[in-house]
Amino acid sequence: MAKLIVLYRRPDDIAAFERYYFSTHAALVKELPGLKRFEVSRQPVISPTGSSCHFAAIMEFESIEALDRAMQSPEGQAAAADVAKFAPAGTDVLVIDTKSI
Amino acid sequence: MAKLIVLYRRPDDIAAFERYYFSTHAALVKELPGLKRFEVSRQPVISPTGSSCHFAAIMEFESIEALDRAMQSPEGQAAAADVAKFAPAGTDVLVIDTKSI
Repeated sequence: MAKLIVLYRRPDDIAAFERYYFSTHAALVKELPGLKRFEVSRQPVISPTGSSCHFAAIMEFESIEALDRAMQSPEGQAAAADVAKFAPAGTDVLVIDTKSI
Repeated sequence: MAKLIVLYRRPDDIAAFERYYFSTHAALVKELPGLKRFEVSRQPVISPTGSSCHFAAIMEFESIEALDRAMQSPEGQAAAADVAKFAPAGTDVLVIDTKSI
């Protein structure tokens, strides 16, 4: 499997962030070709090590190739371009090719 | 679902890190009560935003309560204590209560 993990810092206006995320951005993410699972945090992210992450989104694909294809598609480019419209500075993106052990 | 995500920075000695992780730490993680899924990155983590994460582990539990119970159990305390033995400085831990959308 492959995961695209987006770690958002705490936005200045949490309500506005969530409104935009769930009304607009999530719909763009759901259009990604090959998307297998799309999860978001349902309460503020907890970090015993003091990470500044507040909200997380995890998108799962069959493989790293499928993830790459999704992100290069028109839908992927639209979703990526949309992030700049609402994401707090310092948003982190991780692409992880995983195996179950 | 609930996820415990551990983001390790690049270790000085990658081979030694992986040897310890897979021979010792992973076995402790697998003992965690209630562990549903245990995934690790199979190649260096890629980050378009420049995160310093090199290796990631994702442990999944039924709920945040199950995750908390696992981490408070003797097995959870043993796994957490073991992290200090091999994790590079700056290792980040995130606890995320997720919902599929």
